[in-house]
Amino acid sequence: MLSDLKYDEKGLIPAIIQDIRDGQVLMLAYMNEKSLEMTLQTGFTHFWSRSRQKYWKKGETSGALQEVKEIYYDCDQDSLLIKVIQHGNGACHTGERTCFYRKL
Amino acid sequence: MLSDLKYDEKGLIPAIIQDIRDGQVLMLAYMNEKSLEMTLQTGFTHFWSRSRQKYWKKGETSGALQEVKEIYYDCDQDSLLIKVIQHGNGACHTGERTCFYRKL
Repeated sequence: MLSDLKYDEKGLIPAIIQDIRDGQVLMLAYMNEKSLEMTLQTGFTHFWSRSRQKYWKKGETSGALQEVKEIYYDCDQDSLLIKVIQHGNGACHTGERTCFYRKL
Repeated sequence: MLSDLKYDEKGLIPAIIQDIRDGQVLMLAYMNEKSLEMTLQTGFTHFWSRSRQKYWKKGETSGALQEVKEIYYDCDQDSLLIKVIQHGNGACHTGERTCFYRKL
């Protein structure tokens, strides 16, 4: 349940974004309570940008919107898994489809 | 590259664990530099437990070991995606296969 979620000391919860069609993990970003509400209300992912300290609708300028299909929370209630349909070219600002494009 | 990774102010980096066989996202846990080294050296995931403040070899007591197949890092170099073969019954201490078993 929404009220069970645990945010960290900065009021944030990490959200794993996964493409529901092929299972590819696209990115990890952070939400606060309000950006999660915006996500639920609009059906598109909204995050809190830690570097820019502002709300951020994913794909607002690039068109790489993320249409939310399912949201899960984990056993500790301190992280989210959001399954989306990725619009546009992909999730990463570099032009790659996933932010996880480099192997260690 | 390993030296490019960015740890947070507590020395931690979040690691998404995904089953390489079916793409299921199993859990999100945190590593520090040493637990990542232990992971690379042994081929099995090791984490830093924030609640218990100790190193933690996943599955050491339960048998639910995670055999590491591939490790990716993201464009910001501040999160990891680790593809594993999940051994035992599953990743979650509740007995579920994935920690993300509840829908919001």
